[in-house]
Amino acid sequence: MPVLVMKFGGTSVATLDRIRRAAKRVGVEVAKGYDVIVIVSAMSGETNKLVGYVGETSPLYDAREYDAVVSSGENVTAGLMALTLQEMDVPARSWQGWQVPVQTTSAHSAARIEDIPTDNINVKFAEGMRVAVVAGFQGVSPEGRITTLGRGGSDTTAVAFAAAFDAERCDIYTDVDGVYTTDPRIADKARKLDRIAFEEMLELASLGAKVLQTRSVELAMRYNVKLRVLSSFEEQSDAAGTLVCSEEEIMESNVVSGIAYSRDEAKMTLISVADRPGIAAAIFGPLSEAGVNVDMIVQNISEEGRTDMTFSCPTDQVLRAEKALAAAKERGDINYHDLVADTNVAKVSAVGIGMRSQSGVAAKMFKTLSDDGVNIKVIATSEIKISVLIDRKYMELAVQALHDAFELDKTA
Amino acid sequence: MPVLVMKFGGTSVATLDRIRRAAKRVGVEVAKGYDVIVIVSAMSGETNKLVGYVGETSPLYDAREYDAVVSSGENVTAGLMALTLQEMDVPARSWQGWQVPVQTTSAHSAARIEDIPTDNINVKFAEGMRVAVVAGFQGVSPEGRITTLGRGGSDTTAVAFAAAFDAERCDIYTDVDGVYTTDPRIADKARKLDRIAFEEMLELASLGAKVLQTRSVELAMRYNVKLRVLSSFEEQSDAAGTLVCSEEEIMESNVVSGIAYSRDEAKMTLISVADRPGIAAAIFGPLSEAGVNVDMIVQNISEEGRTDMTFSCPTDQVLRAEKALAAAKERGDINYHDLVADTNVAKVSAVGIGMRSQSGVAAKMFKTLSDDGVNIKVIATSEIKISVLIDRKYMELAVQALHDAFELDKTA
Repeated sequence: MPVLVMKFGGTSVATLDRIRRAAKRVGVEVAKGYDVIVIVSAMSGETNKLVGYVGETSPLYDAREYDAVVSSGENVTAGLMALTLQEMDVPARSWQGWQVPVQTTSAHSAARIEDIPTDNINVKFAEGMRVAVVAGFQGVSPEGRITTLGRGGSDTTAVAFAAAFDAERCDIYTDVDGVYTTDPRIADKARKLDRIAFEEMLELASLGAKVLQTRSVELAMRYNVKLRVLSSFEEQSDAAGTLVCSEEEIMESNVVSGIAYSRDEAKMTLISVADRPGIAAAIFGPLSEAGVNVDMIVQNISEEGRTDMTFSCPTDQVLRAEKALAAAKERGDINYHDLVADTNVAKVSAVGIGMRSQSGVAAKMFKTLSDDGVNIKVIATSEIKISVLIDRKYMELAVQALHDAFELDKTA
Repeated sequence: MPVLVMKFGGTSVATLDRIRRAAKRVGVEVAKGYDVIVIVSAMSGETNKLVGYVGETSPLYDAREYDAVVSSGENVTAGLMALTLQEMDVPARSWQGWQVPVQTTSAHSAARIEDIPTDNINVKFAEGMRVAVVAGFQGVSPEGRITTLGRGGSDTTAVAFAAAFDAERCDIYTDVDGVYTTDPRIADKARKLDRIAFEEMLELASLGAKVLQTRSVELAMRYNVKLRVLSSFEEQSDAAGTLVCSEEEIMESNVVSGIAYSRDEAKMTLISVADRPGIAAAIFGPLSEAGVNVDMIVQNISEEGRTDMTFSCPTDQVLRAEKALAAAKERGDINYHDLVADTNVAKVSAVGIGMRSQSGVAAKMFKTLSDDGVNIKVIATSEIKISVLIDRKYMELAVQALHDAFELDKTA
């Protein structure tokens, strides 16, 4: 029988009632003839409670014990979901990570899945089990210790199972009903997308659309797993939600698929840097070592051997960046006149795979912002994304104007 | 290094503060040179919460899923205890049942431990680990599913580990500071016993002194594990609490060690039963099948082929007993004139291994009760116990009078 993977996040299993509602959705798919693998998170709040216990017990905790403690919430939900399905006469059983086994690296609290042998679960499917309820977020290390995949890791568990079992689709049930062209709280014309390409989703996810864990999208892209995001709080048809899929499966699309934004970017400018070969490495090496996530980088035209270097990073890493650069200057590795931090900026991005074949997207974006009097401070582009740094006060205006300009309220 | 097993019950690990207090006790034993195996229960209230979830989800639940859910509380405590010990610079790690592995039968929710291989833990002891923190109450079935040992099962886990690792002693930390000659709430002269024999503890446990799970005492007796009951809420010396040990290790003891009682006994009398060979089986077979725990049985002298049969059972099983006997009468398996239930009784017992070699204990007990005007309704005796059923209103009086008569407030 074809296999379907269905993942339910913490809010979708927060109470026994919600577990029942989720189980009913599973029952619908079983009735259609699917063997279903259900991936569950902990009841919402549980993991935070356990993380709190660990932090209070041991500020510099042993990550192996952290994993042993915080993985327990998923075990509870998995058992309760299996019981709920059995009550509905659906043959189901729960699986903890080590029982499958979900084999991971030993990088506790941030482990990566290495392999998911399908034998144990397939034997049970062959015996008549229709639903395997698997505790998400967890696995087992080569040493036989429990590991976890990092927060949001159940998305990755779901995609990995879909890949291992060659599932027809991986449905991610969450508290939003799909991926939107932009944040509906900012632009009320925001429209839910029926389909979005993996590459676009990756750009949107890393830009702050926190619907899916970024790693799960990467994994889905690598193994070409059809990923669907949909709400567990609405009655669902087969075409509900947003399908995240490969480019080829999107027949016709807008040139731009979505407008993303981030409030938490700071603009840092190193003024009058002595320009020489290797200067970029001398600046960004120490920043990387200090754990500063540098996003956009712009180097101005060099004059008389000196240049200005501008980059952006999350606002809460500004202090860390300043320290790292001051230390590098102290050591004589770099030489600059001044370092100016502007935390009053925001990043706005247009994302779309259509950009690859369509020219003029950047020009249209710049003209739209200019027409509204928005000054662009930094520009960065990739194959499918154009990002600009602007004054934060113009952020909402810019998102709405770009959403209109690229006609994202209309389907292609 | 010699091995010590220390078990902490739910109230002893109810909060992070209490876990710290327990960990300090463990640290004291490590400092003495012991390798320690700590068995932990779930934080008090946790298991009840999980049992509640299961019952609400599925009244006739799959016991395998019940076990998967309710075992998770112990995993949390084990991890937190290991972290707390590490914070105190004591090398420790947590072990879940399947990691040891604690091999049990497949009788889910009432599994029995079959074997505890010591290799995995001993390898870690050899590598320098000083404390293995093991999640109590749980194990793994031959099918690789999680099992639990029944409520109070962590006591049994502790004794089984003490037997497997040939531990010097198994210390059970709980919320009372030992085993008393009788309930201090009833007799203020009640005295804590320094030592008590396994056989006596078994009689006291089954009579309602709920300090230790009965199975754990049976297991300790079979493998001659020295079992110590002591409070986790008091500073402890080496001689604290009560040592439950083999008879030979008790040099000198009172003839009677303790007076136990039970309020929840009912006296049932079948009046004018047709007496014939096999009649006892015909009566008690159906009661056993109906799940009635018959305790004392007395058959009166037979007259003209008919007799009265009296037995006791827990008061909440009276209805079940009446139904089972009525059904047997209906089927013609037994024939009786009437069934009279007296729920206004209590059982009082004197327990002591000294009775084996000392005569006159029963006589002294009967005279004491008689002197106080207490009428005895039923008598039952074993090698080390004499029990009487009396009117419930005399229960406290009887316990106090017997405690005085056998001079239990004085050490031997």
